[in-house]
Amino acid sequence: MSRLDWHRPEVVMPQDKRRIALTISYDGTKWHGWQVQDNAESVEGEIEKVLSSVTGEDVFLQGSGRTDSGVHALGQVAHFDTSSEIPADKFSIILNTKLPSSIRVLSSWEPESVFHARFTAMAREYRYLIKAFSDMLPFDSGRITPLRALPDVSRLNSYASLLVGTHDFSTFCSSKDMCESKVRDIYESEWTLEKDNYGFPLLRYKVVGNAFLYRQVRSMVGTMLDSALMGETGDDFKARLESKDRTKALKTAPSDGLYLYRISYDENEYLWFEEEYNGR
Amino acid sequence: MSRLDWHRPEVVMPQDKRRIALTISYDGTKWHGWQVQDNAESVEGEIEKVLSSVTGEDVFLQGSGRTDSGVHALGQVAHFDTSSEIPADKFSIILNTKLPSSIRVLSSWEPESVFHARFTAMAREYRYLIKAFSDMLPFDSGRITPLRALPDVSRLNSYASLLVGTHDFSTFCSSKDMCESKVRDIYESEWTLEKDNYGFPLLRYKVVGNAFLYRQVRSMVGTMLDSALMGETGDDFKARLESKDRTKALKTAPSDGLYLYRISYDENEYLWFEEEYNGR
Repeated sequence: MSRLDWHRPEVVMPQDKRRIALTISYDGTKWHGWQVQDNAESVEGEIEKVLSSVTGEDVFLQGSGRTDSGVHALGQVAHFDTSSEIPADKFSIILNTKLPSSIRVLSSWEPESVFHARFTAMAREYRYLIKAFSDMLPFDSGRITPLRALPDVSRLNSYASLLVGTHDFSTFCSSKDMCESKVRDIYESEWTLEKDNYGFPLLRYKVVGNAFLYRQVRSMVGTMLDSALMGETGDDFKARLESKDRTKALKTAPSDGLYLYRISYDENEYLWFEEEYNGR
Repeated sequence: MSRLDWHRPEVVMPQDKRRIALTISYDGTKWHGWQVQDNAESVEGEIEKVLSSVTGEDVFLQGSGRTDSGVHALGQVAHFDTSSEIPADKFSIILNTKLPSSIRVLSSWEPESVFHARFTAMAREYRYLIKAFSDMLPFDSGRITPLRALPDVSRLNSYASLLVGTHDFSTFCSSKDMCESKVRDIYESEWTLEKDNYGFPLLRYKVVGNAFLYRQVRSMVGTMLDSALMGETGDDFKARLESKDRTKALKTAPSDGLYLYRISYDENEYLWFEEEYNGR
């Protein structure tokens, strides 16, 4: 069975195996992205290596989605199938003793019902962190994106609120994306001014959607930041979104500040969205 | 002139030199403490090396105080004297291009009046950061101390508030401390529950004093945490403090979570303390 075959959703889990799910956090600066590639160390490959050695099986991991090189994760979710009799909650403990400190398995469990890390995911949340250049600390390098000055939060939100809903996001889609449809749902999209671990101002973008196109979050963030810098109105930004024209996107924000924050498998969490956007 | 001579306060700055002050942040996990030692890379040594090469002089740096190996700094202050004509505010820019990313010079300036990084410092602020073990992320390693569970903040503050004032801190003083008097002033001492960069609970201790004994902050933190774990009352903790007996201290908290946060050179900032504790 090739890796690709195994990744197909129609492949049914063998009856003599259990499915185990993991919640994983990693520091993306140390790894060449999530997905296994030739000649590059990936988070997925590193965890598969440990799981294979622990179970004595060839373990294949299925993530909720990939993350690019340099992108971090707080709550990546992945699953694997195994004949091993190790209790589900023990996998996180075992993995954490064997994985490098830049990868932490926050929890491991046996899902109760039909579960597939990628195909049963109902929503994905990303966060993007920014600080003023003058407030950047040695602790922030590769983890927070520096800007000369923090843009006005209410102006950023005049753009961010326009992204909520069902839209064709072609403007914010890298040419490398292979999906035919560029239509996606965004449930939440908001900028807030927080404080970092040390009390310095931390600008945070939170976005939740059913799925995202390749580099969509970084393109939306970079365009919002540049639009704010140029003093554009909400209508200017709306024109960019509605153009469905890739050349109307501005900068793509760097990977440093981006975190895959959470994957929701709860069908009920964004029910209000169905009603508000599709139910009428 | 030996290094030690130069460090004496009575040494007057040569009239043909300017004094330049630096505010410095560093990630202590990468360095063997602040102070220059034989055969170990120190923050002070690294900055002196760059300053000497930039000015073409033998530059000696005087910090506000030393920090142990593994202890971090947000606002360490240091000064040096130089004949160089480089504008004061340019030093931070030059240093940041030449220093490794684990050391950042947040500002550089020429003090207006009599200034000595160590001897004119009026107050020193430290912070200590703690998270629950289950919330520890790959980003926290070496920078935040993990605890099995976070103790109750109000209980911790029932101890912390007792530390404010003028006390003999012998209980919390490492046997390696060479100072004759163990009496110090603490102006502020408070635990708060904050959120980290990613929204997880972050327990923070803030302490400000005129000066601290060797490992005093780590000993106070470790003792407060252990006292809370044992369910001790404020009176139990007070007895430990008033015993002036080193054996009545409990654990010394690890260096990971400790930050030299700020040095105050403002004579007026803690004037209220004089009145409240010494004026009557």
